[in-house]
Amino acid sequence: MGAEVGPDPMVVAEAMFDRDAASQSLGMALVEVEIGRAVLSMTVLDHMVNGLEVCHGGFLFTFADSAMAFASNAGNERAFASHADIDFVNPAPLGAELTATATTVVARGKLNVHDVVITDAAGTTIAVMRGRTLTVGGPVA
Amino acid sequence: MGAEVGPDPMVVAEAMFDRDAASQSLGMALVEVEIGRAVLSMTVLDHMVNGLEVCHGGFLFTFADSAMAFASNAGNERAFASHADIDFVNPAPLGAELTATATTVVARGKLNVHDVVITDAAGTTIAVMRGRTLTVGGPVA
Amino acid sequence: MGAEVGPDPMVVAEAMFDRDAASQSLGMALVEVEIGRAVLSMTVLDHMVNGLEVCHGGFLFTFADSAMAFASNAGNERAFASHADIDFVNPAPLGAELTATATTVVARGKLNVHDVVITDAAGTTIAVMRGRTLTVGGPVA
Amino acid sequence: MGAEVGPDPMVVAEAMFDRDAASQSLGMALVEVEIGRAVLSMTVLDHMVNGLEVCHGGFLFTFADSAMAFASNAGNERAFASHADIDFVNPAPLGAELTATATTVVARGKLNVHDVVITDAAGTTIAVMRGRTLTVGGPVA
Repeated sequence: MGAEVGPDPMVVAEAMFDRDAASQSLGMALVEVEIGRAVLSMTVLDHMVNGLEVCHGGFLFTFADSAMAFASNAGNERAFASHADIDFVNPAPLGAELTATATTVVARGKLNVHDVVITDAAGTTIAVMRGRTLTVGGPVA
Repeated sequence: MGAEVGPDPMVVAEAMFDRDAASQSLGMALVEVEIGRAVLSMTVLDHMVNGLEVCHGGFLFTFADSAMAFASNAGNERAFASHADIDFVNPAPLGAELTATATTVVARGKLNVHDVVITDAAGTTIAVMRGRTLTVGGPVA
Repeated sequence: MGAEVGPDPMVVAEAMFDRDAASQSLGMALVEVEIGRAVLSMTVLDHMVNGLEVCHGGFLFTFADSAMAFASNAGNERAFASHADIDFVNPAPLGAELTATATTVVARGKLNVHDVVITDAAGTTIAVMRGRTLTVGGPVA
Repeated sequence: MGAEVGPDPMVVAEAMFDRDAASQSLGMALVEVEIGRAVLSMTVLDHMVNGLEVCHGGFLFTFADSAMAFASNAGNERAFASHADIDFVNPAPLGAELTATATTVVARGKLNVHDVVITDAAGTTIAVMRGRTLTVGGPVA
């Protein structure tokens, strides 16, 4: 008899992703998912830019929020974002290839805090997000 | 001869909106824009929901962020968002008709603070955002 | 027999204040407390200023945080702050007479959002705070 | 001729600290300061607790805010906090010996983002803060 082992975090993430029209519509892809950590990629497309030809801050937030969701649900317990804040550090022009890396920095029962960093292909920081999730339980996958 | 009068805030907003593929791709519409205030509408569409059939938090943020952009640029001086935070209060299901109302609460030179409230058709609060913009000058329209 | 009536919010606040060495040590005073709203006063004293002769931002935060605590506990149910953010708008010099007004903007079950505005005697905004509390129950007074 | 070398960051911090009645009144001490990093210590004293015998969140914020100030001014250029947010993770009881470690995570010209972690003697996280400073120039020491 061993400890109960949940499904593989990448399997949980893929099940979530299949149902997530929002992340799909922005062309996001899963790169790596483990408990308390997720890495996603996204390229800035035509319909994501504002009048200044740079990615709308809302889509940077959406990208970071998705990374946080995959990290916080990787243990196969449903969690919801309750609050998040984002600093826009550098603009991301059309065509930029972005990576979002989410890391859980505080896990205390049901309330968790996660940091997400968005970088471009050169490693320049585009935005940093900090978000809070509330674990409500129930399987994800 | 009187004081210099800038273009009508709604005209400025429409010029911004015409170039804003991001806000258009989410089906947002301008309802009302004046200096320090903007009201936008958006309906939760198929491609905006996540696996739980509710609007992805990132699109709620994008909606609020756009409302803030229209409010903060209404005086025809370019302003950029530097930081924003959002509280997710209630889920917005597929088909929900949302309104975002942005109000400038602090204006001190170049640094400004804005509050945005997202409500549904029944007046229920869906999310509240607080954001900061930096005015960098140069005409918008 | 009517509905159960809790203790007067100002009585609850005074009971909290009597045990609150922190708020007392900064010379705060209760001005007005009702459900979802509290007004406090504080003068910037010698030991509150930093090297620039203006009130340390931490004491402005403490002042706002106390106002939020009185507003969120006024219904005689214990609530704790889980997260708060503050914008420092204008400096508060030594001797400034400050007022903090806390208002509950979102109340949905146990998770609540409150806004606090700090102004000086002339009505100038010194800082704005937004904070979140979690109601855990149990009487305050 | 070499590059201009500024004063030692610890010397700059000590000059700031000597003028900082606020940090002194809470019994803070400088542990370590370098460019983009500062470590401070503080013990939870009688006048810092609220009615629940735990450190008032405002003093945790003040502690973190001071650590951020020392990190952001270590290069001997004046910087002011414009906005900060804090997550209260665990309570800090009377007598707890706390450490605040501030690290600059984004430095892009005048706008900088810093993370501060407060831990107790056992290494438990008490609070995490993220703050933004604006460098305005002029020597500190």
